[in-house]
Amino acid sequence: MNYLTENLSMLCDFYELTMANGYLVCGMGDRIVYFDAFYRSNPDNGGYAIAAGLEQIVNYINDLKFTPEDIEYLRSKNCFSEEFLKYLAKFRFTGDIWSVPEGTVVFPGEPLLIVRAPVMQAQFIETYILMALNHQSLIATKASRMVRAAAGRPISEFGARRAHGSAAAMLGARAAYIGGCASSSCTIADLRYGVPASGTMAHSWVQMFDDEYTAFKTYCEIYPDNAILLIDTYNVLESGLPNAIRAFREVLLPRGITKCGVRIDSGDIAYLSRKVRERLDKEGFPQCKIIASNALDEYIISELISQGAQIDAFGIGERLITSKSDPVFGAVYKLAAVEDGQGRIIPKIKISENVGKITTPHFKKVYRLRDRESGKAEADLICIWDEKIDDTQPLEIFDPEYTWKRKTLTSFTAHELLVPVFKAGKQVYRLPSLEEIRAHCAAELEGIWDEVKRFTNPHNYYVDLSERLWQCRHDMIKAARARKSK
Amino acid sequence: MNYLTENLSMLCDFYELTMANGYLVCGMGDRIVYFDAFYRSNPDNGGYAIAAGLEQIVNYINDLKFTPEDIEYLRSKNCFSEEFLKYLAKFRFTGDIWSVPEGTVVFPGEPLLIVRAPVMQAQFIETYILMALNHQSLIATKASRMVRAAAGRPISEFGARRAHGSAAAMLGARAAYIGGCASSSCTIADLRYGVPASGTMAHSWVQMFDDEYTAFKTYCEIYPDNAILLIDTYNVLESGLPNAIRAFREVLLPRGITKCGVRIDSGDIAYLSRKVRERLDKEGFPQCKIIASNALDEYIISELISQGAQIDAFGIGERLITSKSDPVFGAVYKLAAVEDGQGRIIPKIKISENVGKITTPHFKKVYRLRDRESGKAEADLICIWDEKIDDTQPLEIFDPEYTWKRKTLTSFTAHELLVPVFKAGKQVYRLPSLEEIRAHCAAELEGIWDEVKRFTNPHNYYVDLSERLWQCRHDMIKAARARKSK
Repeated sequence: MNYLTENLSMLCDFYELTMANGYLVCGMGDRIVYFDAFYRSNPDNGGYAIAAGLEQIVNYINDLKFTPEDIEYLRSKNCFSEEFLKYLAKFRFTGDIWSVPEGTVVFPGEPLLIVRAPVMQAQFIETYILMALNHQSLIATKASRMVRAAAGRPISEFGARRAHGSAAAMLGARAAYIGGCASSSCTIADLRYGVPASGTMAHSWVQMFDDEYTAFKTYCEIYPDNAILLIDTYNVLESGLPNAIRAFREVLLPRGITKCGVRIDSGDIAYLSRKVRERLDKEGFPQCKIIASNALDEYIISELISQGAQIDAFGIGERLITSKSDPVFGAVYKLAAVEDGQGRIIPKIKISENVGKITTPHFKKVYRLRDRESGKAEADLICIWDEKIDDTQPLEIFDPEYTWKRKTLTSFTAHELLVPVFKAGKQVYRLPSLEEIRAHCAAELEGIWDEVKRFTNPHNYYVDLSERLWQCRHDMIKAARARKSK
Repeated sequence: MNYLTENLSMLCDFYELTMANGYLVCGMGDRIVYFDAFYRSNPDNGGYAIAAGLEQIVNYINDLKFTPEDIEYLRSKNCFSEEFLKYLAKFRFTGDIWSVPEGTVVFPGEPLLIVRAPVMQAQFIETYILMALNHQSLIATKASRMVRAAAGRPISEFGARRAHGSAAAMLGARAAYIGGCASSSCTIADLRYGVPASGTMAHSWVQMFDDEYTAFKTYCEIYPDNAILLIDTYNVLESGLPNAIRAFREVLLPRGITKCGVRIDSGDIAYLSRKVRERLDKEGFPQCKIIASNALDEYIISELISQGAQIDAFGIGERLITSKSDPVFGAVYKLAAVEDGQGRIIPKIKISENVGKITTPHFKKVYRLRDRESGKAEADLICIWDEKIDDTQPLEIFDPEYTWKRKTLTSFTAHELLVPVFKAGKQVYRLPSLEEIRAHCAAELEGIWDEVKRFTNPHNYYVDLSERLWQCRHDMIKAARARKSK
């Protein structure tokens, strides 16, 4: 189904327009360039990230167009040439895009998405690409961490009210589902994207009735098949729980229903959940689930579990939907190469005083190298576009910084991470369903060693350069320094 | 101008629908209730916040409607009554809303927005109201802090690429402008909301040319009136600055232009900016502005200025658009009262083990009390709706927690903070222009003592309860505890 959605073509940084106009004016507008989108460090000092947001990027590229109102607005700025405005009026993307599929486990320094296009176009789509990738990768990564902490207990994403606007709520729910959450409170995320929506009651439901018991009983009568009662409006152990048990007993049991639940949203959840579990078991409700919410994140979940909290499922709001402990996924979009008139690819580099900010030049491809026996990922290898890894032969890889650190892989598979998404402006990639993406993410995580996935001091996964690419980068840095010292 | 915008009626938490259906089924759907939206603590341990987001709430309320597809989706969930689905098909908001105007300085514990409506409606609009209020208040507050730190130097909001989705980018730019930013890089925020868009060049512009000087010269020729050159692609002092000066001299001076600028996006900005200033002055470009960017926030800005950095303007990206150091504005939406069939208002309270989470009951109004001489705000006073403060008479206010802390105001003005926005479902509030909101915000901040606005240990602004409201709350807490101990 198609929903009325906004035209976001003008969601760009103004400098992309001034630069694009500049390229056109000085006759460079058609030069073919290569931009890489990549990120420099994992959120929360983690060992990995989950890429997400490609579906929205594909839709954005397909929908790109400038309306007469957009053109009129730009004309009013008095800084764009008429030739450029005419160009925009007929704008359509004609380039190529490669990307890692959504749900892929990714690592710092490797291209997640590559654009090859005339510079005016490649420059212009920077903001939307980064925004979509940064936002959804951030939330999918955070969700994946929380799901891992919950160790099999389902997590429901609850955060719409604390999201940074409507897209953050809707697409945040989508990304959380990709990262492994089981459901979301956000109804429109179900309607639009198929994220299963769930939810039962707020404190206000309880307050609307003369007493808690009546509130619970009424709810059980209306929703006997989904009776999850919020038991902390007054007092969990002295009021909420006994009233819930009474309502379950009087309304559900006569109907033969034993599936039910209670939610605790405040107080000492480790202590309360144990007490609630004891009492529920003693009263004959061993099947009653205990759901915990209230400012949780992966660290608190881990602690609760290690303290023996009796929790069957989690509801997580603000700390997931904003990725509170680290709300920025810092993907950047950098020029990696240009083509000369003859179709030759000329690598480009950005030098920086800050060594970590020096880019890796050239049009690239990325291989994931997996151990043939365990199936686990051993390293990613970034190569020049025309290199080919033969995984039937031993392969020596090395640390691009400490080049004496070397390792020879003998029994491995090599799998290309980036897939073609657009070819000459035409979408050539079938967008997978959300369920497929979520399953891909789960399978990807399965293929990563636990040491990379742990929260504290995770193992630094190897992202290496091929010998040729390393040499190219090294030579360009040397040449730049030589120019500088002249 | 009207832009094609999405229908966000289904952007609600699923439990709002199950509760609304529940109220209808048990015959309570038409009960009139009062909900307060308020927040409990200021972001970043600050002394105040800026309210924003009302315009989007008003648009949302006016646009609320459920399409046949929405209804079909809900029917497919097999948990809603046909009566409820029929109700939704004809849904329109018929209640009242009061709110503080956008740009108002607000404090924890006081209602920012009050809804009076049939419970089915009041409950349903919770998520969108909180989301809009939380998001834009968060960013407006953060912007206000940064603008304060910049002490008169303009700040441009640069963060679209790190925003949590499209609404976060567009409305974040709007909120940042309300909070005092001078402009935004986000083009669509200018087109739609009138936030002045600005921007010049990225590193890729410089890299696209054979050398930095040609890149700068070309840019100056195309944009002589807005020549702000990014000088850190290779090396600020050895390459970027001399090339910029040469381009200014060769292209701008012959045209009689002295207005120009350089931007530094990396390195030691305190040191570099001083060196750049010296050189620019020596070379005859005292009017050339120095703009700094690169992961700045209010703390770094303050430090840069105290170190004598020579910066004329700031560009701020991720730490503003995500409010990185504290990305959650925790406004909640709580039931405060219900009406009985006779139009009597019955206050409601939510008790909690956590004292800070006990709500303030009743249908309320809020006065801001200002010193008549200085015009500065002294305290906010939350009253019951029918109370009236006479500011020609002395007024004793007291701390609601430490009630022996009392103060008598003698020369003050009392000004109601909440204004009617909807009356019986009809908008009765003229939405101010963005410029008016921004000016209101600046005037509001002018009326707050510096002690409340400082970053470290700000003075705790007084938000007091009237004697009657305090007594009402006190009695209800006592009654609840008495019930519990029975």
